Amino acid sequence: MDRADFDAATMRLALAEAEAAARAGEVPVGAVLVGPDGAVLARAHNLVEARRDPTAHAEMLAIREAAAQLGAKRLPGCALYVTLEPCAMCATAASFARLSRVVFAAPDPKGGGVLHGPRIFAQPTCHWRCEVEQGPFAEEAGESLRSFFRARREGGGA
Amino acid sequence: MDRADFDAATMRLALAEAEAAARAGEVPVGAVLVGPDGAVLARAHNLVEARRDPTAHAEMLAIREAAAQLGAKRLPGCALYVTLEPCAMCATAASFARLSRVVFAAPDPKGGGVLHGPRIFAQPTCHWRCEVEQGPFAEEAGESLRSFFRARREGGGA
Repeated sequence: MDRADFDAATMRLALAEAEAAARAGEVPVGAVLVGPDGAVLARAHNLVEARRDPTAHAEMLAIREAAAQLGAKRLPGCALYVTLEPCAMCATAASFARLSRVVFAAPDPKGGGVLHGPRIFAQPTCHWRCEVEQGPFAEEAGESLRSFFRARREGGGA
Repeated sequence: MDRADFDAATMRLALAEAEAAARAGEVPVGAVLVGPDGAVLARAHNLVEARRDPTAHAEMLAIREAAAQLGAKRLPGCALYVTLEPCAMCATAASFARLSRVVFAAPDPKGGGVLHGPRIFAQPTCHWRCEVEQGPFAEEAGESLRSFFRARREGGGA
């Protein structure tokens, strides 16, 4: 499998996590963390509502789960796939974890912290810059978010 | 007790947490989260090494613990006291948690995300700006960190 195919297959797993989040009434964001050999170390989706934890973003949960799997606070060579541009909290966590790559689907002009807002990896005080790529399925991931918020505004729940 | 006395007493608890971190070989940062009535909801120190979790900063643990205590993802009216200027991850988490105040002791030009680097609360995309104050004991908190890193450089451990 070449890298584009691998990225697409992995982002599909992240999208499935986002769909699971939406079904549970969570903001639909999903993440997958893969090891240097491409093995999936962790899959997670947003659990802010279920856990009543403002830090329980998909990326944070995936990073923490992968660190627990490997018994290591740093995850060099690992890559994070996420359906939405990470916020500043998650981007900073990715830097602390020494992830090699962060691949996201939909950009997030309102809440993103990588291409937008604080642009964490571009800060002079950022000590580890993950390679960032906008990957496949931006349209699918963005539509999933838009329909979730549309349903919520209309009082339909999720 | 007036606010300055309360701030000093609370920061002393955070300093005690930082000392506990240093004794355990963790970077000495401590945090205390107090409710709107001034009651301590959570005390925590850095556990990155013990938990092998790159996100286990004192502030994150205190925010998560307080949210669990209150069964709420948002903690309006609550204040976070921390011995070191929060990084971008922790400052963003404080914003998500809707904390009213963040009081820190030592500024952190190399890794801070409030007065330095991404200046999270000054970003146009920051949707909730915590009131930030540099509180008491900057010298004590800074010296605790300096002596920790000095000992580590000299191979003396902590």
